[in-house]
Amino acid sequence: MADLVQQARDGQPRAVARLISLVEDRSPSLREVSAALSPLVGGAHIVGITGSPGVGKSTSTSALVTALRQQGHRVGVLAVDPTSPFSGGALLGDRVRMQDHALDEGVYIRSMASRGHLGGLSATAPQALRVLDAAGCDIVLVETVGVGQSEVEVAGLADTTVVLLAPGMGDGIQAAKAGILEIGDVFVVNKADRDGAASTRRELRSVISMTDRVDGAWKPPILLTTATTGDGVPEVVDEILAHRAHLADSGELRRRRLARTRREIEALALTEVRSRFAHLSGDARLDALAEQVLGGESDPFAAADTLVESL
Amino acid sequence: MADLVQQARDGQPRAVARLISLVEDRSPSLREVSAALSPLVGGAHIVGITGSPGVGKSTSTSALVTALRQQGHRVGVLAVDPTSPFSGGALLGDRVRMQDHALDEGVYIRSMASRGHLGGLSATAPQALRVLDAAGCDIVLVETVGVGQSEVEVAGLADTTVVLLAPGMGDGIQAAKAGILEIGDVFVVNKADRDGAASTRRELRSVISMTDRVDGAWKPPILLTTATTGDGVPEVVDEILAHRAHLADSGELRRRRLARTRREIEALALTEVRSRFAHLSGDARLDALAEQVLGGESDPFAAADTLVESL
Repeated sequence: MADLVQQARDGQPRAVARLISLVEDRSPSLREVSAALSPLVGGAHIVGITGSPGVGKSTSTSALVTALRQQGHRVGVLAVDPTSPFSGGALLGDRVRMQDHALDEGVYIRSMASRGHLGGLSATAPQALRVLDAAGCDIVLVETVGVGQSEVEVAGLADTTVVLLAPGMGDGIQAAKAGILEIGDVFVVNKADRDGAASTRRELRSVISMTDRVDGAWKPPILLTTATTGDGVPEVVDEILAHRAHLADSGELRRRRLARTRREIEALALTEVRSRFAHLSGDARLDALAEQVLGGESDPFAAADTLVESL
Repeated sequence: MADLVQQARDGQPRAVARLISLVEDRSPSLREVSAALSPLVGGAHIVGITGSPGVGKSTSTSALVTALRQQGHRVGVLAVDPTSPFSGGALLGDRVRMQDHALDEGVYIRSMASRGHLGGLSATAPQALRVLDAAGCDIVLVETVGVGQSEVEVAGLADTTVVLLAPGMGDGIQAAKAGILEIGDVFVVNKADRDGAASTRRELRSVISMTDRVDGAWKPPILLTTATTGDGVPEVVDEILAHRAHLADSGELRRRRLARTRREIEALALTEVRSRFAHLSGDARLDALAEQVLGGESDPFAAADTLVESL
């Protein structure tokens, strides 16, 4: 295990991939992997990329990778698909832009399925992020493929959240509904070559000024990009790095990471308890408790207390 | 507390109402109430009434109460509304048919809200059922007001599940989707005075014959009723009592109740654990664990294990 972690640290993509598989599959060695990674994490800045379907998320992610690489950053990408049961590299095959980076040794790209995984996205993605962090990525982009609640969940994993919008989609209101205006640190109106980009930016500006923000001291910029050509993308990178500096200087980085780590520990503890209970379904102890309740010798609360104590 | 339980046992409606409020509000004395009820429960046969909106559930429930009372049964009714935050007797005011029974001392009627209750329907309803059981009801009808997943949840609380349908609603297919065909013990096509009742019964007969049933030895009858006039309702009572006898004779009653009690104990234990975790949010111990993880001295899994052990 120490060898594998060292190989990942040395930049061997197969070692990184193997470690992510181990944490994602919740292999028996998961705890060992997690412990081995501990001293190596904390250097990566986690950037969540979120936005409604159709705004150009994967194209923007790819363009961000290009711009970050040009500045010499070592970059990780975690593409989370909450609707798919498949993980690995294959899923990215249809995402043509990502193939531009396939042969770049300074980029790790990983897709992750969360469907059917115990505890869902919130339980598996943080572990994969720790692997990419320990492997020496200084920026890790997390992007959701697909839709729904995971949008906000991804922001919960990130240090900096980039919210993507596109002109003429009524996105201002959609985003407000999804609760992502409060959590965006950098806003990007993509497809800026289309009509309505400037008015989308104005609309967004006025809505954001009215929202209660997580980090009140930071004024989130609203940038225009055309991800397909790369126009405006270096400015997004600048703002991400400016936000990183702001977080570090203000002490907000530590506060965010503490809150995130607390949530992660709680989620893992609850998952552990649930799985211990699940193992009890055929358990003689639970049967005995149920018999006592049916026999009138105990009651459901006393039996539940006994069960909790027996964990 | 012993006094209150004795008063409920003696048939005082206010004592029954008070006990249900105590269990529903998760009052500090909840465990005491639950323990005091233990030796008194098990006599009631729990009948779940389920079906899509518009099939006449509350009218049918009321008609069943009338028919059961005519046979001398002591009857409890628990009307669960998963969408309402309000509980008590007042909610039943708009359910005119139920007022027929308001002055009948052999009937306890209780509405129960589950929205916002920790653990939802599955955590609160079983406790209220135990109160009605301990109070000496020999039949308790559980009915959901409203729609959705709770339909199936209610069946999980019951010894006998009555599935209501109505002609011309395409209900056969709807019911199949909701997964209630497998769990119905008695099927009732209500509004039998309308066109299409006989064909709905035929359709239902053929669908049911193809489903894998929970209790394969019991052939669920399909009855026709007009709940507004009471036509056919005594036959539904006969089939409920026949099913009760079948369950007792076959040993299936004990098997169902054991499975139900196991689920109930597990659900309560999980709720207890979740609430203990919730109390930790501002807890210094969790903060200390998060600091250790951020500092690289521990990892999330080790911290989660420590948290579980500290319960």
